[in-house]
Amino acid sequence: MTVVVKLGGSVVTEKDEPETLDGAAIERAARAVAAADEEVVVVHGGGSFGHHYATRHGVSRTDGTTDPTAVREIHGAMQRLNDAIVEALADAGVPAVPVHPLSAGVRDAGGGLELPTGQVETMLEEGFVPVLHGDVLAHAGAGATIVSGDELVVALATGLDADSVGLCSAVPGVLDAEDAVIDRIDAFEDVAAVLGGSDAADVTGGMAAKVRTLLDLGTPASIFALDDLDAFFDGERPGTLVAGGDPDES
Amino acid sequence: MTVVVKLGGSVVTEKDEPETLDGAAIERAARAVAAADEEVVVVHGGGSFGHHYATRHGVSRTDGTTDPTAVREIHGAMQRLNDAIVEALADAGVPAVPVHPLSAGVRDAGGGLELPTGQVETMLEEGFVPVLHGDVLAHAGAGATIVSGDELVVALATGLDADSVGLCSAVPGVLDAEDAVIDRIDAFEDVAAVLGGSDAADVTGGMAAKVRTLLDLGTPASIFALDDLDAFFDGERPGTLVAGGDPDES
Repeated sequence: MTVVVKLGGSVVTEKDEPETLDGAAIERAARAVAAADEEVVVVHGGGSFGHHYATRHGVSRTDGTTDPTAVREIHGAMQRLNDAIVEALADAGVPAVPVHPLSAGVRDAGGGLELPTGQVETMLEEGFVPVLHGDVLAHAGAGATIVSGDELVVALATGLDADSVGLCSAVPGVLDAEDAVIDRIDAFEDVAAVLGGSDAADVTGGMAAKVRTLLDLGTPASIFALDDLDAFFDGERPGTLVAGGDPDES
Repeated sequence: MTVVVKLGGSVVTEKDEPETLDGAAIERAARAVAAADEEVVVVHGGGSFGHHYATRHGVSRTDGTTDPTAVREIHGAMQRLNDAIVEALADAGVPAVPVHPLSAGVRDAGGGLELPTGQVETMLEEGFVPVLHGDVLAHAGAGATIVSGDELVVALATGLDADSVGLCSAVPGVLDAEDAVIDRIDAFEDVAAVLGGSDAADVTGGMAAKVRTLLDLGTPASIFALDDLDAFFDGERPGTLVAGGDPDES
């Protein structure tokens, strides 16, 4: 059983303080990953590490840069965050190894993400836990652009034919108009009124973009808070289940 | 015109002193890359950074490890060396960006190296200079093994259909029995007596393995010392030309 779990940038960092880790949250997430029985791929967001530099250099998922200093600064900040998370996972007993999307992936001229996953697949088979992260990467015709953790989750779940996806976020799920957690979403129309047509809160998209992306994915995905990460690894479906195109779930 | 250049580990580091850079050599190489007119991919070896940890953990190109600490230590040392070389290249005005083979490549069960090169190709097209390095990577059935800079050069030259390969080494070329540089090698038989059947001086193979590998490559390759790096970028063929299977050179 292969599970792709994303630790949101706002979970693992203090999002308002540049390059500040949330050490307690990272340790807690690391213990949950260590206790999981599944083959786990970890992806983490940028939080206060990547976004800061991406904003300063005007780089987003669509607005690129050809400035190598910008690429190195954004990537360097994400590498520092990745180092900290890999180290925390290792301290908790997780056989974590880093995988940097700048090294592995690329966008084509249409903006499509190409992420070969053969290396990640073999890492899993050999007992390692690959740890990826939101990053900057080469983009045909645009220099280099941001790749979000959510995009990586989708590419990995597809490439690895994963059984389940979990997005550990700052909120306990997708909330309805009364701020109650919506148990399940099968179609965007069901939640369009609550989420709005778009939500560009940061360079990597907000909840509306997240739900749309997960609905297109043929793997059931759950959105939940850190409190529910253990339950997710136990096979429960905490928070909001975005059932997407998976026929078993419909 | 695409050129793949390897800076040998014994060129960029003090090979006998653990984790010690040869700063003057790195700066000199960086200036040469900065002056090059070609699209350049840089690969560097491990020198006193990677070999030290690989030896300690008993990891080679064929003997693997499933110990994640070993993987992280070997990779971490190579990442520190890569950081230093990328920084030196950047200081010289080269639009360098790091590419870590652990993140990108994998060995299959037969030991064959699979290195997707779409990301490197787009980096070149967008004006960046990718900088790769000898590393550790996932190996089906063996945990993780070493990938040498020479192997990466071959995989890159093939994947990118490169026009030329340069190996900047500690010696001025392949030497004959009188220690004179051999101008050109077209077949291993021509030099077998001088090089010996095998030469396993370090975990990543010696000159005999290098020559054999380059002969199998469909791209003309030159082996030369740092003094000749500028001449190589000027289109000359300093040191020893290993003509390999390239029909234009035979």
